[in-house]
Amino acid sequence: MSKKIANQNLRVAILGFGTVGSSVARVLAEQKFGGIELTHIYNRNVANKRGHANAKFVPKSVVWTENVDDILNSKVDIVIETIGGLDPIGKWLERALKSGKSVVTANKQLIAYRGAALQKIAQVNNVALVYNAAVAGGVPVIPATLQGLQGDRITRITGILNGTCNFMLSHMEEGADYAEVLKKAQAAGYAEANPSADVDGYDARAKLCILARLALHAELNPDEVPTQSISKVKLVDFLYAQQLNCTIRQISRVETDGTTVRARVAPMLVPKSSPIAWSHGTQNMVVTTGKFGGDVVFSGHGAGGHPTAVAVVSDLLAVAHGTSRVYLPTKKRSVTGEFMAPHYLRFVVKDQPGIVSAIAGALAKVGANINSILQRPGFPKDQLVFVVTTEPCPAPVVEKAMRAIGKLSFIVDTPLSLQIMTEEDKAED
Amino acid sequence: MSKKIANQNLRVAILGFGTVGSSVARVLAEQKFGGIELTHIYNRNVANKRGHANAKFVPKSVVWTENVDDILNSKVDIVIETIGGLDPIGKWLERALKSGKSVVTANKQLIAYRGAALQKIAQVNNVALVYNAAVAGGVPVIPATLQGLQGDRITRITGILNGTCNFMLSHMEEGADYAEVLKKAQAAGYAEANPSADVDGYDARAKLCILARLALHAELNPDEVPTQSISKVKLVDFLYAQQLNCTIRQISRVETDGTTVRARVAPMLVPKSSPIAWSHGTQNMVVTTGKFGGDVVFSGHGAGGHPTAVAVVSDLLAVAHGTSRVYLPTKKRSVTGEFMAPHYLRFVVKDQPGIVSAIAGALAKVGANINSILQRPGFPKDQLVFVVTTEPCPAPVVEKAMRAIGKLSFIVDTPLSLQIMTEEDKAED
Repeated sequence: MSKKIANQNLRVAILGFGTVGSSVARVLAEQKFGGIELTHIYNRNVANKRGHANAKFVPKSVVWTENVDDILNSKVDIVIETIGGLDPIGKWLERALKSGKSVVTANKQLIAYRGAALQKIAQVNNVALVYNAAVAGGVPVIPATLQGLQGDRITRITGILNGTCNFMLSHMEEGADYAEVLKKAQAAGYAEANPSADVDGYDARAKLCILARLALHAELNPDEVPTQSISKVKLVDFLYAQQLNCTIRQISRVETDGTTVRARVAPMLVPKSSPIAWSHGTQNMVVTTGKFGGDVVFSGHGAGGHPTAVAVVSDLLAVAHGTSRVYLPTKKRSVTGEFMAPHYLRFVVKDQPGIVSAIAGALAKVGANINSILQRPGFPKDQLVFVVTTEPCPAPVVEKAMRAIGKLSFIVDTPLSLQIMTEEDKAED
Repeated sequence: MSKKIANQNLRVAILGFGTVGSSVARVLAEQKFGGIELTHIYNRNVANKRGHANAKFVPKSVVWTENVDDILNSKVDIVIETIGGLDPIGKWLERALKSGKSVVTANKQLIAYRGAALQKIAQVNNVALVYNAAVAGGVPVIPATLQGLQGDRITRITGILNGTCNFMLSHMEEGADYAEVLKKAQAAGYAEANPSADVDGYDARAKLCILARLALHAELNPDEVPTQSISKVKLVDFLYAQQLNCTIRQISRVETDGTTVRARVAPMLVPKSSPIAWSHGTQNMVVTTGKFGGDVVFSGHGAGGHPTAVAVVSDLLAVAHGTSRVYLPTKKRSVTGEFMAPHYLRFVVKDQPGIVSAIAGALAKVGANINSILQRPGFPKDQLVFVVTTEPCPAPVVEKAMRAIGKLSFIVDTPLSLQIMTEEDKAED
């Protein structure tokens, strides 16, 4: 135990006694790791939090406080942060690092936007900053990558990084529509009242940027990574996907050939034969592709109090054991979303002669070749839904054609374009 | 870099320049990690090895030797061992550790039988002993478990730990028979001329014992872990398994409830809906089950020069970064193979009246209840193959009944008994 001095315990504070913070207290109490002592808990409205079911796992000796200075100015050795968000948390953790405290955090947005800067502060102050819980919760992708795959050159990461979207899309696969599964996800506590961070891809994007830095050594600005919402995906898209032996998942991916970095978070058609299609419910999955070791698949519970607490407590133990500090050099990189892929294009039209020819013309104009045209029977003539798939081409080219097609008179609903994951893209089989 | 003194490079020796050792040299040459210098290579018949395709990646400055003392008595900092086997390697590595050298090894038999003892020698001599490559090759199960899941209490591990058996069984699933796939595996270099270590389960058993020690903190004697060969599994078993919505895989599993440790390596019927059934070809897969974090799935290339070299080089970097030394307390534990499970019993009989009644009687005598009787059409009367499945019961009970049934006059081939993985057992869905 590098930080444990003689027989003195490491003093630990938890910021935030919500789902994750209270699970951390519980895991610490039940596992009884030697040399670690929970000494402080910060939360607003402490009186209320002390009534939390997991508060019974908190030792009597712990100082509960509503004033974070009580912790930042204390002799605490390690601060565990489970509150989330950029500010004021970022400033607090910076103060903690500068006062010689190691930090364990599950804060994906903070680490995605300021991780490289905070890592430098930690390094200068000779303390640890660890955040394995920030990506994929209970699935140890970060420690596995940093410790077990650092000998490889990782060139691509493909993942299902948002359990809420996966829950929703895997339920749509079974026949529910978007509004219905959103309600179900909200009722189960998976989705917020405002579900934008999940369904629009911002949560997954933050996690993808953290993985890009640690595994591909590329510092990306999350704002530069293109995202596409899952909220436009309809039940009918799953029926057409089925015809193509695919399902639909929110896919986060980043790859580099050494010069260009491509990254994107979007719903995609995924072949049912791909491991990526295995993920059901709130599961997360990450596939890393290495030059030497090939594909490695990780899967498990990406969120939830207990799985995330396991990641937090494991980080805490790594800091205690002095095994947490691998600082890999990273570089700022710009990013593009221009993955080449076949596209799935779904149109809702008022039936009339010349529709296919007009669409084919618009696609030909941008150089996109049609691969197949699918039409299921039984739609009304004024709400006809059909699908065109293209040969591989870059997303921006297709989007340009889709904007033109969207203005045609027979179009009665905004067309949807999704990329299709191919053999080339897919993990392994 | 804890071991890198001032600007001096860490000196590294490779013992064994076969598939893995030569891949390690190549990965080191292509990745150009700073601070690490390959200085020695030991092998028998050096002249021959210098002609190896990967020898071109070996720096000119490297000392090639056929005398291991040249390395053990040198100032080398880290010894990488890729030869395998218990002796003389065990003594060599013990000498290396005692002379202050850290050791990175892929030697599963050595670590399974003597890992705990060698770890103590390493600890006393303040050097590292790391062997992530010994289990699941390129799949970083050990670092992920030690770093990322140490906060959890892992109660069960279920794995496909032998790529050769998985290659053979997944090809049998597609319609080939045992002798044919064994030849194919031998031709592809996956199986040895004497395939016993793979097909009889001894290779997987060694890996299972290593995982049991690191993840369940239970030191098992590999010789006490029951194994069942895959060599008795026939094509017809896959046809019957299919009827039960299952396939057949060589499954290594260990679990503990705190008092008893159960472990077993055997071919099992696995529901097609289980992640364990996803593994095809030479892939390895490990599912860890934790009290708090639930199931985590790891999958990838379990063997091969490059994937194993990634694990070895990652270990080397972990030693160089000083992040490799987590010594968890472990305890010697006795082991039983008595997993409760439904059983699949396959009989080949000369048809006559009273067969079912005789078999049912023998099973009833040991308290095993029949769940179903399956019989495919088209077998000749004197070689009739049919299957009985039982309700959950312990393997020894069934084996007792099977020995009795095996002596009945209508039996024309040794009956086969396989356990069936159930919802309770299976990883997640």
